[in-house]
Amino acid sequence: MAQEKKLVEAITSMSEDFAQWYTDVVVKADLIAYSSVKGCMIIKPDGYAIWENIQHELDRRFKETGVQNVYMPMFIPESLLQVEKDHVEGFAPEVAWVTHGGLSPLQERLCVRPTSETLFCDFYKDIIHSHRDLPKVYNQWCSVVRWEKETRPFLRSREFLWQEGHTAHATAEEAEARTVQMLNLYADFCEEVLAMPVVRGQKTEKEKFAGAEATYTIEALMHDGKALQSGTSHNFGQNFSKPFGIQYSDKNNQLQYVHQTSWGMTTRLIGAIIMVHGDDSGLVLPPRIAPTQVIVIPIQQKKEGVLEKAAEVTERLGKTMRAKLDDSDKSPGWKFNEAEMRGIPVRVELGPKDIEAGKCVLVRRDTREKIECPLDQVETKVAELLETIQKDMFERAKAHRDSHIWDAHNYAEFTEIANNKPGFIRAMWCEDEACENKIKEDLAVTSRCMPFNDQEHISDVCACCGKPAKKLVYWGKAY
Amino acid sequence: MAQEKKLVEAITSMSEDFAQWYTDVVVKADLIAYSSVKGCMIIKPDGYAIWENIQHELDRRFKETGVQNVYMPMFIPESLLQVEKDHVEGFAPEVAWVTHGGLSPLQERLCVRPTSETLFCDFYKDIIHSHRDLPKVYNQWCSVVRWEKETRPFLRSREFLWQEGHTAHATAEEAEARTVQMLNLYADFCEEVLAMPVVRGQKTEKEKFAGAEATYTIEALMHDGKALQSGTSHNFGQNFSKPFGIQYSDKNNQLQYVHQTSWGMTTRLIGAIIMVHGDDSGLVLPPRIAPTQVIVIPIQQKKEGVLEKAAEVTERLGKTMRAKLDDSDKSPGWKFNEAEMRGIPVRVELGPKDIEAGKCVLVRRDTREKIECPLDQVETKVAELLETIQKDMFERAKAHRDSHIWDAHNYAEFTEIANNKPGFIRAMWCEDEACENKIKEDLAVTSRCMPFNDQEHISDVCACCGKPAKKLVYWGKAY
Repeated sequence: MAQEKKLVEAITSMSEDFAQWYTDVVVKADLIAYSSVKGCMIIKPDGYAIWENIQHELDRRFKETGVQNVYMPMFIPESLLQVEKDHVEGFAPEVAWVTHGGLSPLQERLCVRPTSETLFCDFYKDIIHSHRDLPKVYNQWCSVVRWEKETRPFLRSREFLWQEGHTAHATAEEAEARTVQMLNLYADFCEEVLAMPVVRGQKTEKEKFAGAEATYTIEALMHDGKALQSGTSHNFGQNFSKPFGIQYSDKNNQLQYVHQTSWGMTTRLIGAIIMVHGDDSGLVLPPRIAPTQVIVIPIQQKKEGVLEKAAEVTERLGKTMRAKLDDSDKSPGWKFNEAEMRGIPVRVELGPKDIEAGKCVLVRRDTREKIECPLDQVETKVAELLETIQKDMFERAKAHRDSHIWDAHNYAEFTEIANNKPGFIRAMWCEDEACENKIKEDLAVTSRCMPFNDQEHISDVCACCGKPAKKLVYWGKAY
Repeated sequence: MAQEKKLVEAITSMSEDFAQWYTDVVVKADLIAYSSVKGCMIIKPDGYAIWENIQHELDRRFKETGVQNVYMPMFIPESLLQVEKDHVEGFAPEVAWVTHGGLSPLQERLCVRPTSETLFCDFYKDIIHSHRDLPKVYNQWCSVVRWEKETRPFLRSREFLWQEGHTAHATAEEAEARTVQMLNLYADFCEEVLAMPVVRGQKTEKEKFAGAEATYTIEALMHDGKALQSGTSHNFGQNFSKPFGIQYSDKNNQLQYVHQTSWGMTTRLIGAIIMVHGDDSGLVLPPRIAPTQVIVIPIQQKKEGVLEKAAEVTERLGKTMRAKLDDSDKSPGWKFNEAEMRGIPVRVELGPKDIEAGKCVLVRRDTREKIECPLDQVETKVAELLETIQKDMFERAKAHRDSHIWDAHNYAEFTEIANNKPGFIRAMWCEDEACENKIKEDLAVTSRCMPFNDQEHISDVCACCGKPAKKLVYWGKAY
């Protein structure tokens, strides 16, 4: 029992210190290790397996919409980064610079890509000539580097893994449609696969991507009431194609500039999964993304026939889901705690009495509910249970999110909510950046998005300055 | 017809200029584009899809042997790179150095990983304590950077994609077994999936990896008779664990140093596929790795019912293989040439007369053989044909390889072969590095490997110096 206690004690409780709880879970659930390179993390097998599952499912959905994968160099010459003015201003302060190759200084500095718009533009300029060459709908899976000062595993690290899609289109309408399509793909993925509800909307001018005409975003609410930007999709219009000279001849043989988009999701999503679903016993993984979906834990495994039966059950489960047997020599209690820490959706407990009675016990990670199950129905029962857990986890996260959305009609209400009620604040806004700046300075709250789907008019005036209201905005403290 | 001619004329013939033929194929088959970063390439959709197929199949085989994927930082602090003396000597002259993060100089330079032994050692030192923590069998898929002076697409580029496995074991025997296991996995993969025969053997001291105790290699023969090192597996013994201090307590509670291995394969394999199987019409892809395995090309597609039937056939094929329809408005001849250039294993020709007769024509890319096929059997016939092509491609490559292996018993024979007969040279060696150096200097020929499987004793003396022979060596000019 001493062992079990130690493992559980090792996690700070959420209510005591949410930030410390997060760090504890990330480390104790074996997702990452710190490396000797400051601000860069090592993604351990369980963490990486989650990322592989995310990749696999996202990539499948991308390809269904006609996306093709490519790979671009990891370096960007300084002169190339500088072609688009806003873009270089946004990124130059936080890039890593390569100045030497082997023993010799380089003629021109290269930055390690923080994002690859400039490389894709340079490429598209060479391969797009005619309307027949359009659209180009390319994506790459890679790592990028941003030299952040404050870092946290998954949420903000100097190097992170992501995908970045970059497209070129003949018309503004087609580019806009692709921008929206990918945002919706991201949102559906988060809701269906990560069991994480999101608000879909547009970023304000202040918060949009460096170089974009419009940035669309999905915003999720973490357990502590802070928002997390979980995916973005940008419409560049012709902001890049003009400085880069990406032109095609249209059907009338007229030269036109292309319209472009880009969109990305990152390993940050793993941080979101932790903070949306986790609890004081550790990680709680949505079944569709869990590296191990069900773990079989034998009780009194030294008794004759127990391990054999447990192995048989695991093998049967393994045919249709990701199943594992814990036959290590630890105590069952230790194994239960470890399975909970790692967030495995279902555990199967199986002892000599169960075997005699032809049954086993299924335990849900999310609710801890115990369910008796006839051994000969274990595959179908566990499969059903995984579906139920996936659905319930989404509903619970949605209920939590929905109960943490607060309407503010004036600055007094806004301030009171920001100081006392964690969650999203819905409030009208005049579209003046000065109000965003004031709110950020006073309350450390930023505009998350102007939602697409519930642009209600909840007040006639801006909640900050009292001038005529133009947009409903979701505000929040954010990661 | 002008179009078709242009496409074909665009490739230099192999016999005229093999190097130019290779470059032409790489570009015209749309595998890569050159980038604005010297020595770095852009991998285009068809090139990347080949890599994805390689990744998918290798990763599956890895996981069957218990490999777990992780992700390590892309940067290595200079002090960490320097811990193992031979290793830093081997790699320091060809790494890219990051000296600035954002606007500030770094306290310590970071190199962009050329390989990650040092990072894995630093990680293993922290996570390995007891014999229960062993073995560790980790792998990562990533890109690495080596600042080469002369570069060629896929074969030698400053940045390339690869996987690198790094393992730690309790005993020397276990490390040796893993080194051999992975080399055999690589060899089987090359032969079964890439249809490329390889020689399995050990590198000489001179040619082994910087820091390894032993390096095993697979060597393939390209169409021009040059060798290509296609995968390597290294046994480090305790060469890294001692300087890095990676110790575990064994069952008797004694501290022991771990035994380590590493093994890698790269995008270089795509270069090998091109140079083993390609011909004067372009790429020839083994079916198991081809992004498109069968392409349906309608003849007189404007005639009623032709496009519909072609689409229906493509859809039927698409259920069990990677099938595509070319319904573009190019001429059939142009489409045939394009499909050949891209190396698509089978094309299906389908015109109004075929449809009327209830048949189609299958054309093999590798032999150009045309086969009539009843339309209602097209799925099974194409599937069989793909298997046949895969098998025939391997047999043809093996016959070519085997007919380009020459035995040399003395230096006159060695010189004559090196100057006149492209291929591998089998010759005895005294194990003195001076002979390797002389052969390299005189003839630009290097020792490729000491083969595992045919260590015949073809002569009593070293073919270079005449001293007593110790090993049979495969020699060759190499990429």
